[in-house]
Amino acid sequence: MTTGTTGTIGTTGTGEAVTEEAVASLRGAADPRLRKLLSGLIRHLHDFVRETRLTQEEWEKAIGFLTATGQTCTDTRQEFILLSDVLGLSMLVETMNGDRAPGATESTVLGPFHLTESPVRRLGDDIDLVGGGEPCVVSGQVLSRDGTALPGAVLDVWQADAEGYYDVQQPDLQPAGNGRGLFTADAEGRFWFRTCVPAPYPIPTDGPVGALLRATGRHPYRPAHIHFIATADGHTPVTTHIFVAGSDYLDSDAVFAVKQSLVQEFTETDDPALAREFGVSNPFRHACFDLVLERAS
Amino acid sequence: MTTGTTGTIGTTGTGEAVTEEAVASLRGAADPRLRKLLSGLIRHLHDFVRETRLTQEEWEKAIGFLTATGQTCTDTRQEFILLSDVLGLSMLVETMNGDRAPGATESTVLGPFHLTESPVRRLGDDIDLVGGGEPCVVSGQVLSRDGTALPGAVLDVWQADAEGYYDVQQPDLQPAGNGRGLFTADAEGRFWFRTCVPAPYPIPTDGPVGALLRATGRHPYRPAHIHFIATADGHTPVTTHIFVAGSDYLDSDAVFAVKQSLVQEFTETDDPALAREFGVSNPFRHACFDLVLERAS
Repeated sequence: MTTGTTGTIGTTGTGEAVTEEAVASLRGAADPRLRKLLSGLIRHLHDFVRETRLTQEEWEKAIGFLTATGQTCTDTRQEFILLSDVLGLSMLVETMNGDRAPGATESTVLGPFHLTESPVRRLGDDIDLVGGGEPCVVSGQVLSRDGTALPGAVLDVWQADAEGYYDVQQPDLQPAGNGRGLFTADAEGRFWFRTCVPAPYPIPTDGPVGALLRATGRHPYRPAHIHFIATADGHTPVTTHIFVAGSDYLDSDAVFAVKQSLVQEFTETDDPALAREFGVSNPFRHACFDLVLERAS
Repeated sequence: MTTGTTGTIGTTGTGEAVTEEAVASLRGAADPRLRKLLSGLIRHLHDFVRETRLTQEEWEKAIGFLTATGQTCTDTRQEFILLSDVLGLSMLVETMNGDRAPGATESTVLGPFHLTESPVRRLGDDIDLVGGGEPCVVSGQVLSRDGTALPGAVLDVWQADAEGYYDVQQPDLQPAGNGRGLFTADAEGRFWFRTCVPAPYPIPTDGPVGALLRATGRHPYRPAHIHFIATADGHTPVTTHIFVAGSDYLDSDAVFAVKQSLVQEFTETDDPALAREFGVSNPFRHACFDLVLERAS
């Protein structure tokens, strides 16, 4: 009788043998990095189960939750990114990998709404295709850390509207590409475009992640912000936000993405020269900041 | 200017501040158990990210993998249970919670194929509705740990066929309920039914979990087994398998579910009296074992 056994049952009932067996099963992985990642994941998840003495019923709920999270994802909604966001994982990965030299623009999370190719626009264009929000000009310069301008730097910009919704959340109300633009900086690395001041908004709460927030007594709001990905030849791209100074929720962002250096004034402006320069009517709000990239190593 | 900040960027770049903030965000959870589970999960996942210095690209792959796993789930396929199984998590949860007193039948994983209500059958019925496999009788007695018979104990039984497929995997080839049965033990707690000897089989490999196994050089096979859930009044139910002694893969079950005590002989039999007793033709295979339950505490 061949009763080979994997020996998964220990006398202690702590299941250490299962953990060792699961880790050992990865010995044939061709990629050592994959083996390291999965071994680490198995050890941490198994320790989690042991420390909390996770019950069968709780395991079943977790399976149901993860399944529902996957099934809530569509072409325009990424519930797993949202889950990663509200657990602080997205921001942690950003922080680990986005560490910048002093003076370089800090990074923050990508978020779940960078889903469509932003439409190519010209400097000065208005990305608020609907109107109705508080008019705003965003301008500045893309620089290398030594102060050199970066001509031809590309800015991918996306934001919620004045009601707090992205275009993809309201396909019947907003034209595709509303609040989005792909801009190329001018010969001095300068950029400027028109938009409306974005509103704080709740992350989507009608899915499993919303249920999780409710169960833990957390609000779903993010402070008002505009997303940027800045790229330039020979430099490390930065994925970041600019937060609107004075916005609600700056101290309790549902996805933990606020960094002090990314909070910018959106100044009330009534200056005829500036209005002429940007082709807007007074009064308007004006956010002016530089995006500073590091040379790629 | 209200620039409240969550202080998520530390000077060390290890992101400890994000972890503390994410854990602190659970302070309003109404259910202390949920708070404990999520705090533990956040701490372990964050430590995993720090220890492995998970890259943005690896995080994106993980998000894609989890999304695909959720979207592979259907009414008849549970890819997240499969993922939990191949990471040893299901077996660990079983081991932590299924610790039995000596003499009681040990538990093992539920598996992803307990999806349909098993059809009610009478003792002696054949659950092999197709035929073609090696005929087999399964019999025994459901007992309390002190040896008392448990009349009216209920056995939920499900198994793959002689080719290694469950009914739900082959809706066009197998009638629904093939290989499944809900039996009620007789007045002496005895049970007996006919079936075919199940084959070892690969867990489904056409989804994300299959890709994970290939990437880690693991085979997807499970040793041959029959699933049981045994329930009886006043006793703790047991979810388990009976493994076929001599089967391939007993020492490398893809889901780590083998326990020595669950391996049973499926004896070649040519005994006219036994054949008459069970209403089968000779020769047949005979597995005979007791299922021993613990009194509910």
